[in-house]
Parts: sequence; C-alpha cells; structure tokens
Amino acid sequence: MAAAQRMVVVGGDAAGMSAASRARRLRKPGELEITAFERGHFSSYSACGIPYWLGGDVEGPDALIARSPQEHRERGIDLRMRTEVTELDVAGQRVRSRDLESGTEAWHGYDHLVLATGARPVRPPLEGIDARGVHGVQTLDDGQALLDGPAGSSGRRAVVIGAGYIGVEMAEALTRRGHEVTVIERAEEPMSTLDADMGALVRDAMCGMGIEVVTRTEVTALRTGPDGAVTAVVTEGKEYPADVVVLGLGVRPETSLAEAAGLPLGESGGLLTDLAMRVRGHENIWAGGDCVEVWDLVAGRSRHIALGTHANKHGQVIGANIGGGYATFPGVVGTAVSKVCDLEIARTGLLEAQAAAAGLRFVAVTAESTSRAGYYPGARPMTVKMLAERGTGRLLGVQIVGREGAGKRVDVAAVALTARMTVEQMTALDLGYAPPFSPVWDPVLVAARKAAAAVRAAGG
Amino acid sequence: MAAAQRMVVVGGDAAGMSAASRARRLRKPGELEITAFERGHFSSYSACGIPYWLGGDVEGPDALIARSPQEHRERGIDLRMRTEVTELDVAGQRVRSRDLESGTEAWHGYDHLVLATGARPVRPPLEGIDARGVHGVQTLDDGQALLDGPAGSSGRRAVVIGAGYIGVEMAEALTRRGHEVTVIERAEEPMSTLDADMGALVRDAMCGMGIEVVTRTEVTALRTGPDGAVTAVVTEGKEYPADVVVLGLGVRPETSLAEAAGLPLGESGGLLTDLAMRVRGHENIWAGGDCVEVWDLVAGRSRHIALGTHANKHGQVIGANIGGGYATFPGVVGTAVSKVCDLEIARTGLLEAQAAAAGLRFVAVTAESTSRAGYYPGARPMTVKMLAERGTGRLLGVQIVGREGAGKRVDVAAVALTARMTVEQMTALDLGYAPPFSPVWDPVLVAARKAAAAVRAAGG
Repeated sequence: MAAAQRMVVVGGDAAGMSAASRARRLRKPGELEITAFERGHFSSYSACGIPYWLGGDVEGPDALIARSPQEHRERGIDLRMRTEVTELDVAGQRVRSRDLESGTEAWHGYDHLVLATGARPVRPPLEGIDARGVHGVQTLDDGQALLDGPAGSSGRRAVVIGAGYIGVEMAEALTRRGHEVTVIERAEEPMSTLDADMGALVRDAMCGMGIEVVTRTEVTALRTGPDGAVTAVVTEGKEYPADVVVLGLGVRPETSLAEAAGLPLGESGGLLTDLAMRVRGHENIWAGGDCVEVWDLVAGRSRHIALGTHANKHGQVIGANIGGGYATFPGVVGTAVSKVCDLEIARTGLLEAQAAAAGLRFVAVTAESTSRAGYYPGARPMTVKMLAERGTGRLLGVQIVGREGAGKRVDVAAVALTARMTVEQMTALDLGYAPPFSPVWDPVLVAARKAAAAVRAAGG
Repeated sequence: MAAAQRMVVVGGDAAGMSAASRARRLRKPGELEITAFERGHFSSYSACGIPYWLGGDVEGPDALIARSPQEHRERGIDLRMRTEVTELDVAGQRVRSRDLESGTEAWHGYDHLVLATGARPVRPPLEGIDARGVHGVQTLDDGQALLDGPAGSSGRRAVVIGAGYIGVEMAEALTRRGHEVTVIERAEEPMSTLDADMGALVRDAMCGMGIEVVTRTEVTALRTGPDGAVTAVVTEGKEYPADVVVLGLGVRPETSLAEAAGLPLGESGGLLTDLAMRVRGHENIWAGGDCVEVWDLVAGRSRHIALGTHANKHGQVIGANIGGGYATFPGVVGTAVSKVCDLEIARTGLLEAQAAAAGLRFVAVTAESTSRAGYYPGARPMTVKMLAERGTGRLLGVQIVGREGAGKRVDVAAVALTARMTVEQMTALDLGYAPPFSPVWDPVLVAARKAAAAVRAAGG
C-alpha cells in the first residue's frame, strides 16, 4: 500500500479548515494525512460576527466558533493551535512551524500545501498607531482584546477610523455598548463601497442613532498618554478624545510568507490562483480566503475582496480538488450586505467610479419603492440604484439602501450579473409576488424598468 | 392630421389599465383615444390583497385600489365602470357594451382591442354551490360581498374548499376574524403547488393556528337552509356545518367573450398570444393578465397562471406595443410566494410531478438551514427543496418553507432558472452574506451543493 499523502494547511479559519474538512470527507486518514497550523487561539470562527459580539447581540466568542479544535481533531485533522508557520520552502516542499507557547520549531513536509493566511487590518504609518487601545477587528483574538480594554465597559469615548463595513458595524456596536462614538472618514460619505449619493443615506441613519460622522477628514496622528494608552485622534482641524480607537480602514492580504517564498502576488498583494484555486505555476500549492485575489466577473480583472463567504467557497473547492474531485471558483460579482441600526445596505457589481475605471460607458438610475405592497403593514421605503451599460443594456451594478427586506434583494441582481443579463431582460423576471413580500413590481424590477428606459434614451 | 386611433380595453384591472396607462404615456389623446370597460365597481385594484382586508391587516377596499376611475379619467382614459362588454365582432372591429345600471347597449369600433377579462373562481357543479353564503374571492366586489355576509362578523363557522394559495390565505384571514375554520382539500396535503412533503409543513402551521385541515377528502354537496343560505358542506364521510363557504379551488380564464368570437384558446381555456401579447393570428387584438396562457420557460409548454404581477407585466408590454414601442413577455418560471401565519411558502420552477410530466429525469434534495447566521438573534429554520436535471445538472425547481426571511429567497432560484443555470454553477453564486442576513452559506446554496452532489452521484 502506498504511503499516505500529506496535506498541510496554514491558517485555521474558514478557507483552511473548509479545505481540510472537505478533503477529509473525500479521503481516509490512511490515504491523506492532514495537518493544520493556526497561530491564534481560535479555529473555524466567524470574524464577521465580532461586531455583534461586541454589541451584545451574540454571546461570544463561543457562539462564533463553527467547529472547535477538538472537533476538528476528532474528525481526523491534526490541528495545531498557537502554532505559526514562519517559513515556506517551496523547493523542499516543507514549511517550518513555531509553537508560540513553547518556542519549539519544526519542519513539516507536504504533498499538498494550502495557504489560508487571511488578511490583516490596514494600519496607516501614523504616530501613535501602535498605542494601547488601538484595535483592528479581524480575528476573535482581536475581539477579545477589545473587550478586555476600555471598550469592554461603557460610557467611554470611542473613535472609529474609516467608515467602511467594519467601521460602520463597529460604530453601531460601540454605541449599543454605551460608548460615545465618532467615526472619521476620508471620503465624502460613509460606506465608500457605495456611490456617494447612496452613502449619504447611510450617514443619515448613523447620525440618527447618535453617532458623530466626520467625513472628508484625514487622521494625522494618534495622541498617547504617559501610560502608553491612546488618548485622542488628531485630524487636520481638530482633536477627538478617545479611550479606544478602532481601525476600520479595510484589510490587506496577509501574504508575507508567500511573498518571501516568491509566490505570485497581484497588485493588492493577494496571491494569484487559477480557477481551481491552485497558486499560479505551482502544481501542489493552493490558496484561498482573504489572502488571495478573486476574479471580478463584471470588471474583468482580479481584485482583493475579503469575505467569509468567498473563503468558505474557496475551501470547498480546494478540498474537493485535493481530495481527488474537481471543482472551480469562477469568480465574484462584488456582492456585499451590511446593516447599521435598522438600515440595510447592499451592493453588487460596479459603482460608477469602478465602471468608468473598467472602461465602460453606462447609465445610472435611482428608484424609490417599498419592501411590501404599499398597503400592507410594515411596508418600508427602499432606494435602488442601478447601472447598465450603454448600447447593450447589460446590468453592471446595483446598490440598495432601505429598511427590513431591502438588503437581500441584491441577490437577484447578483444572479443577473452572473448570467450577464440586460436590464430589459430583468424587467420580465418572474420574482415572487404577494402583498406581504413585495409590491406587484418588485423594487429591483422598478429600477430595471427605469434603467431600460434610460438605456433606450441614451442610444448606442 | 390623421384621425386618432381607437384603443378599446375590456377589463379595468391590472393588465387592462396598465396597458391603457402605458399607451397613454406614449401617445397623446389626439393620436390615440382610449376607452376601457369594467363591469365591476372597482378599477386597478389588488385582488391579492383581499385576504388581508378580510383578516383586518388592511383597510379595504380603498387601500387596495392603486388608481381610481376618476384618476384614470383625469389621465385621459375614458374608463366606463359597471359596463360589461357582451359581444366581440372581430370582422367588424367592434365590441358591444351594456351599462349594468341602465341596461343601455352600444357598439364601439376599435383599431386596437385589449382583452383583459381576468379569471373566475372554479365552481364545481355541486348541489347547493350557488347558495347564499358561498363565495369566490377574485374581485373586490367578491370581497365586499363576503364582508356584507356572516363572514363580516365573528364567531361563525367557515369552511374553505380547497387549500391552494387563496384557500390557505382565506383560512388564516377568517381565523383572525374570529371564525372557526375548516379547510377541505382533495389532495394529500395543503398547497398542492408544492410537493406533498413540503405541503405537510404548511399543514402543521395551519393546525398550529387552530385551523382544522381535512385532506384526501372530496366535497360532494352543499346543504342549504330554508332561507336559501348555505348551512353545511358535505363530504363522503361527514358533514361540516358552515355559515360561510369560501371557494379556494383556483380560477379559470374568463374567456367566454373571446371563445364566442372564435379566438384561439389553449387547453386551460386561456387565450393564446405571441411574445408581444398579441392574440395569435390577430394583428390588432391583444390579451393579457388572468385570461391568457403564459409560456412556462422550464416546462417548455404554455399554461394558465393567474398572478397580478404577470398581469401588470403583460399590460406594460401591450401598452408599449400599441403606443408604438416594442416589448415582449418571454414567459414565466412559475414563481409564487405566500404566507400563512408566520410561515413563508415559496416555489419556482417545477414540482416533482410537473418535471416528470415534462419528460425530465431529475434528482430531488431537501436541505435544512437558517435565515441568518445560526448565532445571530432571530435566525429561523428553513427547508429548501431543489430539483435538478440528471446528466446536465440544470436547475428545475425550488420550494422553500420557513419563517421570516425564507420566502423571497426563491427569487435567486427564479433568476437562475431564467438563465438556465446548473446547480453546480449555483454553488458559486456571489449572494449577499452578513450574519444578520444569512449563514455564510445561504440556504439556497446549501441546497445547490446538495443537489450538485446528487447529480454527480446519479450519473448521466
């Protein structure tokens, strides 16, 4: 009988452990040995749930853990916690690990290597950025560190730098915990994953819950007290006192290991893979999750999008392929949903600036509608913005801001984008209608009709 | 200047008045005269809202009226209420109307005729079926008649015959009004628009709200009292006392006018049209709404599906074409959503029996999931059933039963069916994910993964 193949996984969260679990289901331990290394205290958790843990909606961190290290081990995966992989030797097909508790180092050979090293929050090179009380929100360890500091109590002053998804969600969580919260954002409006006209609706909702929103403002430094803890966030015009600072400036791929080993990286620093999630040019090295670039099917380019749902899909694809099956990850269309207070925020496809950067000529329309038939109790207003290509009428993007029932409507547009539908085709979509669920024209169809008219009016 | 063309519309609800309104926006009164005839007391209303009116959720009937006769007239449409069209003279290009109040009759010539005569509830040829207290629920006049009878008070005994959408919604409405409700259904389970295994979930919810559900039971007669009002519903084994009876046996196209004129009808009795909604073989006769058959894109056949959302689309297409534009209605995939108590019920595509009848070989899977991340407050269970074609893996149908957040998820499948996606392709769909909106694998994707595995296992 042939010796078992060795699968080594670097990173014990969504992509890595999905890959390990899928491969384990397909191949017995006698055929495939699986070893996984995680430098943190937690495995297979939902980082997206951290704001809800901090906000008090969720009992953390246990509730955020999909599968504990022990459960993985019981399923035949040798998961080593608090163990960092410090070096990758591609030619020798081995990685070097370091036990963070004992300091012990060891080399491990592999037949298949999975890089699932995730992402790290952007930390701008500002004075005071490494002070105590300044937190990224990327891992459960980060969440625990926040709760162990001033953010764990209430009545403090919190400043969130950056008003993207994480910034906005964290601002709400900190407000609900009883802190006084200021969000400072460089762009014109919060949520620069939306066009500014839609972002303005998010600003209104944030202000409505008592969050101070400061836009078009650059943070220049962080002030630190004699004890080494942050005391204020400094901008060009003003100083904002702060007991705790949260970084919501987005994340970058954590690919230092890959970079040192000479693996191919894209513009964002993310690993470049083929459709089977194999690192380009490397037959037996795979990568997935927040450390890779994904293909954007609408823009026709690869980009870095850190999202747990992609990471899980990557892991499934990698696990299937290592396990002897066949699967691919064809790409994304850029869907994201979020929530601040009772405002639901969603987008898919391209923003105006992204469409222009892709070389596309387009029309953009905005339509107001409601979540249910206007006469049905609980009908809430909703704004849908839609972009379509001039000439062809192909759907390019949708943004939705509204209350209950707004956010997940973006999925219709996500599928339509994947199928490269025109907005005219969309006007005929057979979407579910009944008064408790939708007006007789679903809000997405109202926008599609308006977009189709705009395409006709714009000509070729 | 040429004389204005004459557009005549028969039926003043969704399809007819959408057609009139769209044509009006495209053509001035000097170019196109529009006359519409409606035999009832209401125009442009939401018949789908009637159960909610009766149940007390909606102030009816006014709230259910999208546009009053007066508003239509102010927009330049000569809408004649309580006026029935009694004859269609195709060769002479004219229709005969009868004013139901005065009895006055008149002929009206047309250049374009729009037939939007709707549907009528099925009334089986049973003894007592025409007794007082036996109601269909198709028009606002029907709703008003119900409220004017015993159903308008509370504490009576109500029997609903048929447990389709209308039957189930009416059963809930009557229960909420304080009546004791029995539903009698011929099939194995309620909601025969679902497979029986999914219908069983609906039965549980109905029973949970105190509705008596009697299945596999045929109604044989209705008992009538000396005053001519219904007193009981008789089945083979038993008699159910009833102060009011609601017919929930579905509807048939109301095409007696068209039939008498020799226009082409399908198996269901619905008018047959081309893709522009022109009655086949008749250059200047158009038809839409509940009186036509629509093309089923999944089954590859035409069928009768009475739904307000289709009627509105038909009207838009007809109005655009008469108004000098160009539009088509490519067909439907069979989407429907409904609600009983807090149970959301949705379907699109084909049921098992429909797929078999279409000559398709398929696999069927059922997956349990939740509406939100399992740890997020308010996450509710959901069952998704999915059918896929053997060999190709093409999606054939989806049924969903669950609580809040379940129903509209069917839209993802509706778009995927329209785009003829495979279930394997669906596993990669970039649907919106965040803990308040979805588990990291959306319930539809969970079902798609299971279906893709079943397709692989089934082979060619």
